Amino acid sequence: MLVSDYILKFLEKKKVKKVFLITGGAITFVVDAFSRNKKIKYIDCGHEQGSAMMADAYSRLGPNFSATMVTSGPGATNLLTGIACSWFDSIPGIHFCGQVNMNELSGAVKSTKKVRQVGFQETDIVSMAKPITKFAYRIKTEKEIPYILDKAYDISTSGRPGPVLIDIPMNFQRKLINLKKLKKYKSQKKINNKNLKDKINTTYNLFKKSKRPVIILGGGIEISKSRHLLDKLFSKYKVPYVTTWSGKDCCYHGQKNYIGTIGVYGSRAANFTVQNSDLILNIGSRLDTRITGGNPSSFGRNAKIVSVDIDKYELNKKRGLNNFLKINFDVKDFLNQFILKNQYVCDVSWLKKCNNWRINYPEVLKSWRKQSKLVNPYYFVETLSEVLNRKDIIIADDGAHLTWAVQAFKIKKGQRFFSAFGNSPMGYALPASIGASIAKNRQRIICIDGDGSLQINIQELHTLSKNNLPIKIFILNNNGYGIIKQFQELYLSKRFEASGKGVSNPDYKKISKAFNINYTKIKNHQNLKQKLKKILKSNTAELVDVAIKPDQKIIPKLQFGKPIEDLSPLLSRKEFNENMIVKKIKSDKKIINVN
Amino acid sequence: MLVSDYILKFLEKKKVKKVFLITGGAITFVVDAFSRNKKIKYIDCGHEQGSAMMADAYSRLGPNFSATMVTSGPGATNLLTGIACSWFDSIPGIHFCGQVNMNELSGAVKSTKKVRQVGFQETDIVSMAKPITKFAYRIKTEKEIPYILDKAYDISTSGRPGPVLIDIPMNFQRKLINLKKLKKYKSQKKINNKNLKDKINTTYNLFKKSKRPVIILGGGIEISKSRHLLDKLFSKYKVPYVTTWSGKDCCYHGQKNYIGTIGVYGSRAANFTVQNSDLILNIGSRLDTRITGGNPSSFGRNAKIVSVDIDKYELNKKRGLNNFLKINFDVKDFLNQFILKNQYVCDVSWLKKCNNWRINYPEVLKSWRKQSKLVNPYYFVETLSEVLNRKDIIIADDGAHLTWAVQAFKIKKGQRFFSAFGNSPMGYALPASIGASIAKNRQRIICIDGDGSLQINIQELHTLSKNNLPIKIFILNNNGYGIIKQFQELYLSKRFEASGKGVSNPDYKKISKAFNINYTKIKNHQNLKQKLKKILKSNTAELVDVAIKPDQKIIPKLQFGKPIEDLSPLLSRKEFNENMIVKKIKSDKKIINVN
Repeated sequence: MLVSDYILKFLEKKKVKKVFLITGGAITFVVDAFSRNKKIKYIDCGHEQGSAMMADAYSRLGPNFSATMVTSGPGATNLLTGIACSWFDSIPGIHFCGQVNMNELSGAVKSTKKVRQVGFQETDIVSMAKPITKFAYRIKTEKEIPYILDKAYDISTSGRPGPVLIDIPMNFQRKLINLKKLKKYKSQKKINNKNLKDKINTTYNLFKKSKRPVIILGGGIEISKSRHLLDKLFSKYKVPYVTTWSGKDCCYHGQKNYIGTIGVYGSRAANFTVQNSDLILNIGSRLDTRITGGNPSSFGRNAKIVSVDIDKYELNKKRGLNNFLKINFDVKDFLNQFILKNQYVCDVSWLKKCNNWRINYPEVLKSWRKQSKLVNPYYFVETLSEVLNRKDIIIADDGAHLTWAVQAFKIKKGQRFFSAFGNSPMGYALPASIGASIAKNRQRIICIDGDGSLQINIQELHTLSKNNLPIKIFILNNNGYGIIKQFQELYLSKRFEASGKGVSNPDYKKISKAFNINYTKIKNHQNLKQKLKKILKSNTAELVDVAIKPDQKIIPKLQFGKPIEDLSPLLSRKEFNENMIVKKIKSDKKIINVN
Repeated sequence: MLVSDYILKFLEKKKVKKVFLITGGAITFVVDAFSRNKKIKYIDCGHEQGSAMMADAYSRLGPNFSATMVTSGPGATNLLTGIACSWFDSIPGIHFCGQVNMNELSGAVKSTKKVRQVGFQETDIVSMAKPITKFAYRIKTEKEIPYILDKAYDISTSGRPGPVLIDIPMNFQRKLINLKKLKKYKSQKKINNKNLKDKINTTYNLFKKSKRPVIILGGGIEISKSRHLLDKLFSKYKVPYVTTWSGKDCCYHGQKNYIGTIGVYGSRAANFTVQNSDLILNIGSRLDTRITGGNPSSFGRNAKIVSVDIDKYELNKKRGLNNFLKINFDVKDFLNQFILKNQYVCDVSWLKKCNNWRINYPEVLKSWRKQSKLVNPYYFVETLSEVLNRKDIIIADDGAHLTWAVQAFKIKKGQRFFSAFGNSPMGYALPASIGASIAKNRQRIICIDGDGSLQINIQELHTLSKNNLPIKIFILNNNGYGIIKQFQELYLSKRFEASGKGVSNPDYKKISKAFNINYTKIKNHQNLKQKLKKILKSNTAELVDVAIKPDQKIIPKLQFGKPIEDLSPLLSRKEFNENMIVKKIKSDKKIINVN
């Protein structure tokens, strides 16, 4: 069997149905195998960055994982930003890079080791990809290909998942391999649930002692494929729960005891809940700076934090945050046992308090709905979420519009809502929406984008168009980089260098026309719901240009140096203090519990 | 002085007039310094890849070098393909990446060393950029910034130039520095011309003994800023000379004794010259595989090769090619002394033979000019070159249209003609043309692009448009990836997977309209010259869509396994043998000189 055919057979076995690629000199032989395989197809993309982002989204939604194929040099380096999305968000995926022939590699002979380049378009992609992959490897003989593929797959999908990259010199791509004579790979997956029971018991006992427990649901719920265990969790543990951004779509809006999302752009209600709690069960969140605020020691400062994470390095971080109990297990294994315990109901007054916060501090204010000129993004996102259905998949890009979307979107049960949270590149949402639609059998996808972000991978509008995908792109258009402008207004006396000044947008109406995509402009709140319903009904791609105030703010937002319960605009100290059961004195290193 | 102001002052001193950037959270403080500096401006780009490529071209043309500024994470990784262009082609340039605060870096404390990401959008760009930069460094204290900037500049511009990258955690960007108390950097530049004289004498003596010498001019002529020495070289050494692609614009079409470009897509005339020569003086070419063919031992197989290269690793490569004499000096230093020797005139019959090859094997065949349907790219490029003037700068992208352009373009004295030859990414020519126009005071630039390539960085059409640059984009439109199609036709039985099949173009007429760029379609040869003159006359950007046959070939082209004198379509053996003064027998390891 030819190596190239073997690679496709391998992907086929792993249930990969689509490969995202751009061909090129050094990958041509691998791509040729598609002519002999009817079960797996390729999507030709506009830029390899698009391919990697499509693959990332495909992997987030697909039955299994995804692949890209690209040529050496620029083809490979163009993948890196997309691969980083998968790396930081723990998404599996395999990236095949063509490489020059073995004898044309620098270092193939000793004398070429320090030469910048020997073969045409030769680049050391393995070294470049190492910091953002679980495994990056250059094939050394065609015989090891089956072994390396199995190994790469195993590494990518086991433990904390992540992307892998395989670099294949051209000369191996067209070789024959005899499958009978090859070394077999043995999975390194360890299932070791020793001590898990003890830790679960300890956790359960902490709950029993706790007056104000809270559960945080992070991206680990989805990554470990544990969504289906949540109903049982919530029915067994009657406690308030909150989510991170990555965990937002684990809960739906209005779900009983769901308080909201936490963090520097979190909801006041959810942040009050966490900051007043005495026991935090953190399931699958790495509790990064965007969650804890700049001073991690102020996060959950009066709580015992129990963290479940498959990545021991995340648990062992010592930067102020103290995990009282570290449960270094797969979230699914943890949940499967944790939900077997007897029902636990927390103090009713605590539950009520948290739910009151949710009611008292809604994400979208009434006054915003009444804005007469231009569109308020919070009202817009809220309205959009109201007209979507349970099967919808919503993908947001990054910056201000992502923040507005996360803050105001009201998830319905069954919906998926994500972005490339950890890497947060501009330009993710469009290719990701394409990958998502393809993963879901050409389903409608809701793409929430920014006027700056959309430009980054605008070439993929052609990929969208030529594949006839019903993707609805909503540009929250504030004519510039809103999140930077807000920062400059706060800290740099409104010097809008390169965020407002020097920045402009193409005419998105003309752009839509150029790519054969329907265009609608929304200038104000009039008949918003009807307009959205009409747009959503169509079977085709739509680009909706939503005019936002150029100085529209993110509200609320944490300012430098504040703990996350104290979001800006600041509440009056009276109101703030009334919300704080646990008061802090002077610094976050001196805390007293006054309740 | 603020660190951010110091950085701009430093660039100002180095004569950088424009910085190519996209702002973002982690670089905002540095970008803010533009509000306080009137001598240096920024260009806001559509994608950081565009920024890096604009900077690359700016550096190739500018009085000095260039800079980019980008935010951490995706901002930084988006630069890499552009940085690689500078790395492989020895172009200096400095890339500033914002980074998360020091205390938010993985590894800031021991326990976070193996965590994937601590700060938001944290990415280890220094490790990722190392394989493609001369120096990549993360700032460790604000005090070292002046020292590191001097060091980075020195490294970037000395020896074999190349790009450098400086990663600056946010917390340092807003610090004050006291310039008086800082460590000063001492340049490591060594000027050591010991032995140069001996080597020049040896070279000169080799010329005196040679019957069939040839000079190869490579990219090193431009990189070492030695163009002005060439007239003197040619008047002192009456020998045939040829160029590599990177050296093409060192000579003009019809220049006395200039035979053409060499290599796998070289001219028959130039390849015959090199392959029949008994002495090759190679000035500033690394003689890579695209020059030597797949079997370097067959290159100049009967010649003594004298190579001048500042990079000793290039000289010491042992992959079949044997340098008889290695001159590890700066090309300029070499030329300055080499042109002081007495005049040397080679055997007249040899000169005549080479010039006859040039006449007998023109790049553009008469029959191609008569093509009645669609446009022949050779004829097109030839005609375009005829109507351009001596100040024009021509930038080609990569793939088939680059090859057509290099083969058929007739350089006029003073013109610049380049691409990102070593890295050869699709999508280079458009941003590079923008960078070039900006470097040259908004000069007209001729951008020769492909229908596939242009899509890669199509977002920069907006940058072009908003800056009102008179860039003339010529798309040699063959509806697919021509160079891959030709490969598939030869070796993969015309299975056009992902080159013709699955690939399509957006409607470039509509695209032009969307970005406010004039559009012209050229469908055949009728009135071509007049049409081109009209397009060139305008003061604005123009997009010219040139319809090429979808199966248009690159002619000539080397097939696998052949030595470079034997380009395809193969000449009759009779004709071939008549051209070979030096005959080879059996293999390229057994060679006899029959003349």
